[in-house]
Amino acid sequence: MKVTSLDFYFDYLSPFAFFAWRDIGQLCEKYQLELRAHPVVFGKLLDHWGQLGPAEIIPKRDWVSRYCLRYAVLHGFEYNPPRFHPFNPLPALRLSLKEVSGAQQLAVIDALFHAGWTRGEDLGDLDNLIAILERAGIDADGLDEKITEQAVKDTLAGETSSAIARGVFGVPTMIVGDQLFWGNDQFEHIGLLLEGKDPLDSQKHKSLKSRLRKIDRKKINQQGINVGDA
Amino acid sequence: MKVTSLDFYFDYLSPFAFFAWRDIGQLCEKYQLELRAHPVVFGKLLDHWGQLGPAEIIPKRDWVSRYCLRYAVLHGFEYNPPRFHPFNPLPALRLSLKEVSGAQQLAVIDALFHAGWTRGEDLGDLDNLIAILERAGIDADGLDEKITEQAVKDTLAGETSSAIARGVFGVPTMIVGDQLFWGNDQFEHIGLLLEGKDPLDSQKHKSLKSRLRKIDRKKINQQGINVGDA
Repeated sequence: MKVTSLDFYFDYLSPFAFFAWRDIGQLCEKYQLELRAHPVVFGKLLDHWGQLGPAEIIPKRDWVSRYCLRYAVLHGFEYNPPRFHPFNPLPALRLSLKEVSGAQQLAVIDALFHAGWTRGEDLGDLDNLIAILERAGIDADGLDEKITEQAVKDTLAGETSSAIARGVFGVPTMIVGDQLFWGNDQFEHIGLLLEGKDPLDSQKHKSLKSRLRKIDRKKINQQGINVGDA
Repeated sequence: MKVTSLDFYFDYLSPFAFFAWRDIGQLCEKYQLELRAHPVVFGKLLDHWGQLGPAEIIPKRDWVSRYCLRYAVLHGFEYNPPRFHPFNPLPALRLSLKEVSGAQQLAVIDALFHAGWTRGEDLGDLDNLIAILERAGIDADGLDEKITEQAVKDTLAGETSSAIARGVFGVPTMIVGDQLFWGNDQFEHIGLLLEGKDPLDSQKHKSLKSRLRKIDRKKINQQGINVGDA
């Protein structure tokens, strides 16, 4: 199967999505892939899968912050996260739809990601988002009006629903062919897949899927079995 | 601050805990750290933090399985996960308490991890656990009786509570000094810390902690704002 495109799912709330974004362009160039960028509402993914975001668990939020600061130093780039976090990502996500920004889509995403995560700008404020785009030389004329249209809101909701239907449970997610990769640390595996050297043993993966479950956490809790029991 | 020990929190349910276990001994040897192994009940961590485990989200379970198969091939080791998964980890965790296995603790953990994750054995069956230990040359005499004692059950519960009190939200977690690291991919950062080359800017981390939140997902949901709204 010849792969010609890569689907990239992101929300500006995630530093890991920003880290992956920093590298995804080069990957797509190297393997001559069309980069199809899909803004999605991370909070809706979490709601759907019944999951919490990293920033919603206090010690995890702390670990993420330390991890990201270290990662940025080691990778040699400025890391200054958005001054408010979490923020309302909807205006930024809507500006980032191909249906809104058209041929400028990738430039818009790049400008917003960098403004938010390297310069610490507020990505939740529409006026500021437009100013960011203009400073980046992007024609933002009328975009602030456009994103209030119901069709645009529906498009973002549709992107999010489509992502869920494909099994996207977090951001960043990259889908290459029929393979889903989650996280900013997946580039080695994606590269091997694209070179036709995927180390995955698909038969083994398939057979592992049919493993029997011997326990269910929710059932355990319902039955009142706890750590003190056998 | 001279660090002389490393706390390793794990549950046999996690392949990532196994991957970290494969490397942790060498790390501790290199930096002359005492390895303090803490079996904890992963399900209880999830309950406490209101989180789901990777195996509880179907597409995430699928991604984890593919990730692990690829990781093992690339790192050159046999990967055959426990034949039943999830399984009841309590007997294995109790056997792995220092209070139960004493001076043999690290050997017990090593034997159980490898039996479960490289040979695909059932880690939920006590008779099999004892057989695994005996085959590894470990004196398992009386351990099956011992882990039924209330004091042992309480010790495992206490390990889990202590972990939560320290902010442990997942496995594997490594705590070095006052720094918590989560995941099997943290060795580069831990190594730099131990070499006195931690890239973390603690002041910056501290100032980022006081960032303002501009939105709250739960509040959004309560207010009935959804993807379709501004």
